[in-house]
Amino acid sequence: MQQAWVISIGTELTLGQTVDTNGPWLAAQLAGLGIRTRRHVTVADDAEAIRDVLLQASAACDVILATGGLGPTDDDLTRQALADAAGVELELHAPSLEHLRAFFAAREREMPERNQVQALVPRTGRALPNPRGTAPGLRIELRGTPCYVMPGVPFEMRRMFECEIVPQLRLAAAGSVLLARRLHTFGLGESDLGERIRDLMERGRNPEVGTTAELGLIGIRVNASAPTREEAEARLDETEAELRRRLGEVVFGRDDETLAGVVGALLTASGSTLSTAESCTGGLLGKLLTDVAGSSQYYSGGVVTYANEAKINLLGVARADLERHGAVSDVVARAMAQGAARVFGTHYAISVTGIAGPTGGTPQKPVGLVFIGIRTPAQTTVHRRLFGGDQPREVIRVRAARTALNLLRRRLQM
Amino acid sequence: MQQAWVISIGTELTLGQTVDTNGPWLAAQLAGLGIRTRRHVTVADDAEAIRDVLLQASAACDVILATGGLGPTDDDLTRQALADAAGVELELHAPSLEHLRAFFAAREREMPERNQVQALVPRTGRALPNPRGTAPGLRIELRGTPCYVMPGVPFEMRRMFECEIVPQLRLAAAGSVLLARRLHTFGLGESDLGERIRDLMERGRNPEVGTTAELGLIGIRVNASAPTREEAEARLDETEAELRRRLGEVVFGRDDETLAGVVGALLTASGSTLSTAESCTGGLLGKLLTDVAGSSQYYSGGVVTYANEAKINLLGVARADLERHGAVSDVVARAMAQGAARVFGTHYAISVTGIAGPTGGTPQKPVGLVFIGIRTPAQTTVHRRLFGGDQPREVIRVRAARTALNLLRRRLQM
Repeated sequence: MQQAWVISIGTELTLGQTVDTNGPWLAAQLAGLGIRTRRHVTVADDAEAIRDVLLQASAACDVILATGGLGPTDDDLTRQALADAAGVELELHAPSLEHLRAFFAAREREMPERNQVQALVPRTGRALPNPRGTAPGLRIELRGTPCYVMPGVPFEMRRMFECEIVPQLRLAAAGSVLLARRLHTFGLGESDLGERIRDLMERGRNPEVGTTAELGLIGIRVNASAPTREEAEARLDETEAELRRRLGEVVFGRDDETLAGVVGALLTASGSTLSTAESCTGGLLGKLLTDVAGSSQYYSGGVVTYANEAKINLLGVARADLERHGAVSDVVARAMAQGAARVFGTHYAISVTGIAGPTGGTPQKPVGLVFIGIRTPAQTTVHRRLFGGDQPREVIRVRAARTALNLLRRRLQM
Repeated sequence: MQQAWVISIGTELTLGQTVDTNGPWLAAQLAGLGIRTRRHVTVADDAEAIRDVLLQASAACDVILATGGLGPTDDDLTRQALADAAGVELELHAPSLEHLRAFFAAREREMPERNQVQALVPRTGRALPNPRGTAPGLRIELRGTPCYVMPGVPFEMRRMFECEIVPQLRLAAAGSVLLARRLHTFGLGESDLGERIRDLMERGRNPEVGTTAELGLIGIRVNASAPTREEAEARLDETEAELRRRLGEVVFGRDDETLAGVVGALLTASGSTLSTAESCTGGLLGKLLTDVAGSSQYYSGGVVTYANEAKINLLGVARADLERHGAVSDVVARAMAQGAARVFGTHYAISVTGIAGPTGGTPQKPVGLVFIGIRTPAQTTVHRRLFGGDQPREVIRVRAARTALNLLRRRLQM
């Protein structure tokens, strides 16, 4: 199996001002290609330190993946360090310069002179196209070890890795495969879930099974190794089937599927439409729904009624109900969901009203209390949840929005 | 100034299944103590690899901080690797064993036999108490360089670092402080901004100045070192003042301040209220505004009008305008902002209508085209932006929402 080093470059990283997500992302992608990341090194924007790490890596592994330090400013030193490590000069690369000019032109802007340095390439290397940004990536051999350098901006880096680098790595990694799959669950705690699949999580098992938890979403990662892709896929399929058998409808999707995407597919399949009425989530639910490309086919829109007057004027919530029961109540959640369905003329509607904190709680209605209304063509149900008042505002909001999506999913799957 | 290496240990980290936050946290803490992290290395649970990194670090820096691999299971190999690096044996440490037994007793549980390995300490090292968990930390000298090893569980690690290690580091680092500050800007490209502050970004300058870019937000980090905290603060203040003088209103905040938070503070200061009307951002603008605790004081709510009917019914946009100009137009953006201010009865309103893609673009109205309406008590202005149709949906949405907040900020600061 091939061995990789992943190198992240940036003083904001070594000073701890930014958490690097490129390294873990790359390592996970490499695993999927059957390449094991042996070491992940983070260095500052310091040409000498970068050069040293590159040379050390070139002696210790089969392939080097590095990110960062390709920007246009004086603290972007990766190009120079790479040239130093290879013992060659930097040269202006005409097609990259052309791309830079076109990039700015498409945005109706003049290219600053400074950006020209981004078209410099070490003499023995070559540029990797970056359609999403100004900095091309670089590929070079360091003492015979292929080294790929990508921009640090995650969405530029990811595209470059997938389109420019993966095909080359696939060629090199032929012979053994390490495939990864993720199942996503909602509605069962991590330890309860772990108890149900304990035997599958035993060390040394192939596929390997592990869990991760993130604000109510419990992910299950499955890694299978095999001589061929087909065999690895078959092992993944078998374990996935067993996990689904044990966990049932708690599993809502796999790999890149999201709760909002699954809800969207279910709505599309039944030709139904959806609207939202949000209070404490403040637009987050609409944001999650519209993260999905094509959501305009089923999501008509929503109302963020942070103020009581807005709940009355836009959704037709009765003033008397607001006064008697308060904005955070079963009655108001129900009226909000029904109001949204009426105003937007949709088959389904979700409402969320709660106390996200950090202030505004009372002994009767503590921070973390949330009511979720689910309006279907048949009925409107309201669900009360308590998300833990010691949690930060953002945690309560994310959990509330995800719970609402999951409740609608379960309803649509009935 | 003292130099540190930070080492994170764990196969879940090198496989990219978990994002390491211990490394960045430690680097930030070390900076506050005047210790600069030169390198951050992540290695798998592999005794030989861990030993090699420890030895390499001991030759390259003044102090080593490592986390992870101190658990009770067979894949926890850090203790052994540390003993190997020091060339000594592991010995049972009676007080640590005592602590382990007490830890389980307090939870009314029997101590599993395999936890006993957590009381093993390299002969020339010593144990660091861990009141929050079972694994004690370890301190040892490797070729004269002090090395501290802590558990990987963040809340155990942090307490151990603060209570057991900081006092020792303070003694060693006496005489210098490294302080960090971040300024946030919006509205100027990274290279144009870099051009204006080029001399401040020169290598070797104190304070050090560098930039980072993330979807339109350009951050400027400033790091000052000095013999005392007061002197370092004074240097930061001086450089911050100079940066603000050169960049003017492009700077919107510092450290943990956000665009939405600054807008909120400006609205609060003038006793004004705000509402939103969103199309392509689908609730993201409302989400960003309500991320701020206390936003209910000025944010009345918003409407997500994804469908044209919703724009007509909820915001009073004229059907004729939608037909003549299309939903993504100057005229509709203006009507949406005015409609939101009217419906919610607010002083200010923001509207966003555009094409987030990946489909839906035309030659006249490409993906990435966004109109932003800003309604103030005095007037309504509409701003046209082109965010680049080659960008993913999420990037266009985030840029559009941030641009809208920034336009409102500039208006409120006039």
